[in-house]
Amino acid sequence: MNIIKGNLIFAEKFGELTILEHHYLAYDEHGIEGIYQTLPSAFSNCKIEDYQDALIIPSFSDMHLHAPQYPMLGMGMDLPLLDWLNTYTFPTESHFKDVALARKIYADLASNLVKNGTTRVAMFSSLHVDATLVLMEELERAGITGYVGKVNMDRNGGEDLQETTEESISETKRWIEASKRFAHIKPILTPRFTPSCTNELMQALGDMVKQYDLPIQSHLSENQGEIAWVKELHPDCQEYWETYDKYGLWNNRTLMAHCVHSSDRELSAIKDAGVYVVHCPSSNEDLLSGYAPIRHMMDMGVRVVLGSDIAGGDHLSMFDNLTAAIRASKARQVMYGKDRFLTVEEAFYLATSAPASFFDEKPGFAKGNSFHAIVIDDSKVLSVRPLSLKERFERAMYRRQEGAILAVYSENRKIYG
Amino acid sequence: MNIIKGNLIFAEKFGELTILEHHYLAYDEHGIEGIYQTLPSAFSNCKIEDYQDALIIPSFSDMHLHAPQYPMLGMGMDLPLLDWLNTYTFPTESHFKDVALARKIYADLASNLVKNGTTRVAMFSSLHVDATLVLMEELERAGITGYVGKVNMDRNGGEDLQETTEESISETKRWIEASKRFAHIKPILTPRFTPSCTNELMQALGDMVKQYDLPIQSHLSENQGEIAWVKELHPDCQEYWETYDKYGLWNNRTLMAHCVHSSDRELSAIKDAGVYVVHCPSSNEDLLSGYAPIRHMMDMGVRVVLGSDIAGGDHLSMFDNLTAAIRASKARQVMYGKDRFLTVEEAFYLATSAPASFFDEKPGFAKGNSFHAIVIDDSKVLSVRPLSLKERFERAMYRRQEGAILAVYSENRKIYG
Repeated sequence: MNIIKGNLIFAEKFGELTILEHHYLAYDEHGIEGIYQTLPSAFSNCKIEDYQDALIIPSFSDMHLHAPQYPMLGMGMDLPLLDWLNTYTFPTESHFKDVALARKIYADLASNLVKNGTTRVAMFSSLHVDATLVLMEELERAGITGYVGKVNMDRNGGEDLQETTEESISETKRWIEASKRFAHIKPILTPRFTPSCTNELMQALGDMVKQYDLPIQSHLSENQGEIAWVKELHPDCQEYWETYDKYGLWNNRTLMAHCVHSSDRELSAIKDAGVYVVHCPSSNEDLLSGYAPIRHMMDMGVRVVLGSDIAGGDHLSMFDNLTAAIRASKARQVMYGKDRFLTVEEAFYLATSAPASFFDEKPGFAKGNSFHAIVIDDSKVLSVRPLSLKERFERAMYRRQEGAILAVYSENRKIYG
Repeated sequence: MNIIKGNLIFAEKFGELTILEHHYLAYDEHGIEGIYQTLPSAFSNCKIEDYQDALIIPSFSDMHLHAPQYPMLGMGMDLPLLDWLNTYTFPTESHFKDVALARKIYADLASNLVKNGTTRVAMFSSLHVDATLVLMEELERAGITGYVGKVNMDRNGGEDLQETTEESISETKRWIEASKRFAHIKPILTPRFTPSCTNELMQALGDMVKQYDLPIQSHLSENQGEIAWVKELHPDCQEYWETYDKYGLWNNRTLMAHCVHSSDRELSAIKDAGVYVVHCPSSNEDLLSGYAPIRHMMDMGVRVVLGSDIAGGDHLSMFDNLTAAIRASKARQVMYGKDRFLTVEEAFYLATSAPASFFDEKPGFAKGNSFHAIVIDDSKVLSVRPLSLKERFERAMYRRQEGAILAVYSENRKIYG
């Protein structure tokens, strides 16, 4: 049994923090055994990693990001969406047919995720299977856990970034088989979005959901132009979500990024199916997509998690993205005079606890969860008076604590520090 | 003569970048002598600091921030404005009667400004003269230049943070006299805002503007509650700005923070007087103040500069604040469907070139300007293809280039690196 000690702070419920000063947490290779104010005598011979007065919080889950867009992070942000896609996104992704390049970029991405305290991901790769396997390998090597998807797109990608329907299907199957060698990174089916996939491909992916028992990730209702386009492509569907539902790509293991412009009818369908909304506030601001009604979704009982959506979003760090979620919610409140903004505890819940169920776990440092954590040393930040742990927690979220991450744990292993 | 070499990037006009690849810049203790593609033979014996392929940009001016609020940066951000002031702001500022504490905090602030590439400031201190002199001393020691103001407030500050009118006047004069010893940091008159100052104090400050030939900084039209309060206090004034104008605190050396809710009439008065609007996008988002109409102001010919407004704002780095200005402008565009968002070149102009005239200089690296610059090494950021200097510039703004600042120059001196 491994014991770590410090100030444990986590969110068991949306909007509530559990703050345990100078407590012990015991975990082994099966996960968290328990949290104790006084160390049980059974553990008296265990080695204790004593982080003193540091803050220990669950590490972040980034539930929507595009790995091959990492090298274009922070570029083309003044372009309209279509120009941005054609000038930056698609040409950048097309480079990932080069496996050596993929190795270099993905090793760097994996290392930067760890340094920023992100240990769980649901990630889009490109359509290239070999580069996707390299991505999974590099994430696994760095200690990251979660899901990676080979992207499917057999239309509207242009010459350099498109597969035939047959290729897309056979390559996806090759990739699923090859992915079996990874212990911590699992495959997730990834139709890029409805306009990128023919009905035949969507049907084949729906069949694979059943055949391989895999989760699904895609995009939904990000902006009005996209919604109108989907309507043209599927005149039989009243709303965008139905284009996924029709092909068996709509269930309680489905992640749908954005949902900025989802109607209440669409949100009800999301709630009823148990689909997860991945809120990507930085991206939605950068690309002028809008301000998703997160408070309203939470009130409806929709499951909302957070994503950086690099490189539509410009921040890899989930510290930045959770405060971006607060700012976006404030923009919405200022704009519409309703939907009260998200508090720091609420945004923290979305970035750490809300995704737990997607990984078959419970919110926070619950017994039985695998141990994922960030240890933050905030002792060098000056103050005029002693601060409460709650205040230090909030400050750590907003200040991003550059250089202050002492250690990162992922799936019961110390992977940094 | 000192020569530095690298990729020089600066904004001479709003929305335009001058990009000079591998050029030489010559400066001495009087300022910038010139920029050359080939080094003139007259300088052939000068030592060259060759930054190779690094980016060299003008350093930032932070034209509105509250030094004594630095230790509360990132706390209380979920509180309504009044609670935030009473729980955090005023109690924190009141600690600065302690000069030893001020020394510690202000040395830390000065050092972090330098590390983030901010070399010019217009800063609020607290009402305490001794701590204000310590602040000026620490900024001067770190190499920062610009203006610091002892805050005046003889009403509505509560027990711990208020002066009598007489004290406020005599202490301000003592401070102005004592400030004469500083070479790079100058005093600026600083009525906190209209609700903090009696008419008698406002009149005395107006007299000091003439007597000592000093610039002025304050707050204007930040939120609706404040505007209504000012209206109650000055029923004779049709608009907020007139409460400053009435007392001689409104001229072309006046900085007014926020102006989120200024009417066109108020903006015309700003333009006609040559007053500077200090746009503080992070603060305006964090405190739900709103989204200032910057595009509209620029179209009117109003002079707009940028401020971090810590600790209403949560980012000290002007990299963050200039991208926050872009995001805030995007929020406005999404909200109202007009006022096209600010491009990265435009926001960069506001953070570097627009404040030049306040310091009697020209935009960019103009001949005769004192040399203020940041040298950025972006060579460790991976890319899939060679990038243009314009692309590298944009990426550097968005990525904040943590740890990538090689050197900082301020008023013709290398102060970091």
